[in-house]
Amino acid sequence: MATTHGKVYRKTELVGTSDTGFDDAVRHAVDRARKTLRNIEWFEVKEERGKLSGGGIEYQVTLEVGFALEDTMTP
Amino acid sequence: MATTHGKVYRKTELVGTSDTGFDDAVRHAVDRARKTLRNIEWFEVKEERGKLSGGGIEYQVTLEVGFALEDTMTP
Amino acid sequence: MATTHGKVYRKTELVGTSDTGFDDAVRHAVDRARKTLRNIEWFEVKEERGKLSGGGIEYQVTLEVGFALEDTMTP
Amino acid sequence: MATTHGKVYRKTELVGTSDTGFDDAVRHAVDRARKTLRNIEWFEVKEERGKLSGGGIEYQVTLEVGFALEDTMTP
Amino acid sequence: MATTHGKVYRKTELVGTSDTGFDDAVRHAVDRARKTLRNIEWFEVKEERGKLSGGGIEYQVTLEVGFALEDTMTP
Amino acid sequence: MATTHGKVYRKTELVGTSDTGFDDAVRHAVDRARKTLRNIEWFEVKEERGKLSGGGIEYQVTLEVGFALEDTMTP
Amino acid sequence: MATTHGKVYRKTELVGTSDTGFDDAVRHAVDRARKTLRNIEWFEVKEERGKLSGGGIEYQVTLEVGFALEDTMTP
Amino acid sequence: MATTHGKVYRKTELVGTSDTGFDDAVRHAVDRARKTLRNIEWFEVKEERGKLSGGGIEYQVTLEVGFALEDTMTP
Amino acid sequence: MATTHGKVYRKTELVGTSDTGFDDAVRHAVDRARKTLRNIEWFEVKEERGKLSGGGIEYQVTLEVGFALEDTMTP
Amino acid sequence: MATTHGKVYRKTELVGTSDTGFDDAVRHAVDRARKTLRNIEWFEVKEERGKLSGGGIEYQVTLEVGFALEDTMTP
Amino acid sequence: MATTHGKVYRKTELVGTSDTGFDDAVRHAVDRARKTLRNIEWFEVKEERGKLSGGGIEYQVTLEVGFALEDTMTP
Amino acid sequence: MATTHGKVYRKTELVGTSDTGFDDAVRHAVDRARKTLRNIEWFEVKEERGKLSGGGIEYQVTLEVGFALEDTMTP
Repeated sequence: MATTHGKVYRKTELVGTSDTGFDDAVRHAVDRARKTLRNIEWFEVKEERGKLSGGGIEYQVTLEVGFALEDTMTP
Repeated sequence: MATTHGKVYRKTELVGTSDTGFDDAVRHAVDRARKTLRNIEWFEVKEERGKLSGGGIEYQVTLEVGFALEDTMTP
Repeated sequence: MATTHGKVYRKTELVGTSDTGFDDAVRHAVDRARKTLRNIEWFEVKEERGKLSGGGIEYQVTLEVGFALEDTMTP
Repeated sequence: MATTHGKVYRKTELVGTSDTGFDDAVRHAVDRARKTLRNIEWFEVKEERGKLSGGGIEYQVTLEVGFALEDTMTP
Repeated sequence: MATTHGKVYRKTELVGTSDTGFDDAVRHAVDRARKTLRNIEWFEVKEERGKLSGGGIEYQVTLEVGFALEDTMTP
Repeated sequence: MATTHGKVYRKTELVGTSDTGFDDAVRHAVDRARKTLRNIEWFEVKEERGKLSGGGIEYQVTLEVGFALEDTMTP
Repeated sequence: MATTHGKVYRKTELVGTSDTGFDDAVRHAVDRARKTLRNIEWFEVKEERGKLSGGGIEYQVTLEVGFALEDTMTP
Repeated sequence: MATTHGKVYRKTELVGTSDTGFDDAVRHAVDRARKTLRNIEWFEVKEERGKLSGGGIEYQVTLEVGFALEDTMTP
Repeated sequence: MATTHGKVYRKTELVGTSDTGFDDAVRHAVDRARKTLRNIEWFEVKEERGKLSGGGIEYQVTLEVGFALEDTMTP
Repeated sequence: MATTHGKVYRKTELVGTSDTGFDDAVRHAVDRARKTLRNIEWFEVKEERGKLSGGGIEYQVTLEVGFALEDTMTP
Repeated sequence: MATTHGKVYRKTELVGTSDTGFDDAVRHAVDRARKTLRNIEWFEVKEERGKLSGGGIEYQVTLEVGFALEDTMTP
Repeated sequence: MATTHGKVYRKTELVGTSDTGFDDAVRHAVDRARKTLRNIEWFEVKEERGKLSGGGIEYQVTLEVGFALEDTMTP
């Protein structure tokens, strides 16, 4: 059975935070990922939590971010 | 044991999308369901994901939408 | 690798209700499915909940009902 | 907060079967879906089981198949 | 093996609701918790659902809220 | 973003038991909850187990019971 | 660190069936277990399903049954 | 169908902490529960986490603790 | 409530392995089960893993295999 | 597609107990398994619970223990 | 309690793709991992999905790949 | 909706091992992470397993370790 050569992706797990809400926490994590990773293509929300201090709320969202692996990257 | 006649509901699974955030993606799915389904009563969020392209984020939310089955509908 | 032609089934998700109990709620959902679907063969219980009002209990059971797809049905 | 108009998808749950293996069972379910549904775009494997009879194995795979909802479809 | 004396927390499960969205529903549950509980420190989102009636959406979010147990509180 | 004032609910986790069956065990837990809690509105079944002793069966069902929080209740 | 000698239990997984309902299906599995196993002490419900044929329902319940291991039993 | 009167239990969710390990964190949560709750009978581990600061580890274990409800207790 | 006499099944958990792929690993486990168990009727895939050594892959699949309990078998 | 002959394993589910802690409860279950089973190779922790009575704690750990099936063993 | 020095492993999450099937998608991910990682020892399948376009199927498998951490690697 | 700038964290998945027990296996994984990662702040236990060989037990614990991402790190 010959082996064809399909694309391979990696997922990395990030936690974004925000004082505003979960959508904004997603944006922070995605913006950070874009700074140092090329080829990011999708994310999946794994968990939503929050830290409560004073009268405020810190929204925290855990994402898995997927990106195409280039040939020289370490998976 | 006699059988009483309780109401029966159906759930259908939809994915709403939005460039703005998850709440907005929920609204899109619900608005679409309302166009062709009567009696929708509740939804449950099953998954939140997103597509990343260019500098943008497409928020994607998977919902199960519940509605009362009328007598002539196919479940 | 030739493709053989196996049977294909569809599952649809229903919620049955009853004032008596969960077994009865299952019967309501199954009876309703039988009215408009041929070929139903099995079900799987996904969730059991209830609504409490006055002194009563409405038992609610979520089922996935499986049936053989005929050639002209929309999956 | 204005509502933008994102695409909406539906998922339907199918069970494909095969005497050969799980990949082939996936193909059967996908081939069947393509006959009566336009716009199918992805699937997710939910469960793998099998029926054993005589000396044979019937592989069974449960898939959720996603497709873009057109304006006149019932979700 | 001597027993050291670590802090103990309790979690309580709340459901917040809102006509606006899930972030707002979180704020309602947190605001309510702050009225009668001291020391709340974090929350975890367990479920997101909604009720559909008329043309509106009631967003519902189930949270577990964690707080430090004081000596005289009943866990 | 102004905060509207949505209703807040609490869930408490109970285990009902019965020598007769699971529906009856649900009734015991619900009856007990009604004695000291006002406003209970729904329950969710989390687990079903049983204790076996002599020739008998003690059915045990774990429920989360939801009720509207009044202003002076501790969540 | 010395090892104390605690009791050890085994769990075995059974599926009981009934034409009447899930409680009855539990009794069938438990009755069968009692015929050839001593010391059974508890069970946990893992799954509830059913087979539909003709106008009837066969209720199926999967249980894990726990029992104390005697010295000469094979785990 | 007459209703028999089975015992009812409540579960409450606690987080114990320790600098030593998870068993010790369990003991802290159990010791605290015993101070203000009578009748506690069992616990279930739901989650194990830890906080890392300086060179140390704070072990954190989330437990559900079950106890028999007396007649005058609020569930 | 009279007790009817339904069939009882047992499930046993096996891990099949193969150098070729997951379908083949399923066949190995099923073939082995057939050597010493009569009446096997179905299986459910619980997990897929693999061992990597040298340049090869050992595919490993965990199955639960169900079979009808005969009267003299130990469950 | 020829069938190669891979090794087959079985998993059995045990509950170990200890007055000392979870590691010790694991050792009890493993020690018991070694008395009557050859070839045990690994275990997986499925659940951690405890029984509370008097001032003590009985730690309970549910394990799946895996072992290579010999030719004459019943799976 | 003295600390012994056990081996430490890391897991990384990859998605392999193939036009042929899931086994082949696993091989692509494993082959890619072997190019830039030494010491990979096992993998666990986390998810199976597919993309449907034209008449074809792109099989996608998400794996966690485990490898021994050497002293100078960043976990 | 302006984007505020929240902190972003990454999680990496490690497996610690020990001949002594799970707490010790946690320490090994944490000690290893501290050698090459700054800013590690918390961990979550994902799985506990063990390898059995000779008369010994190798305890294995899978952790996700969270740490603050600095500006120049690759997520």
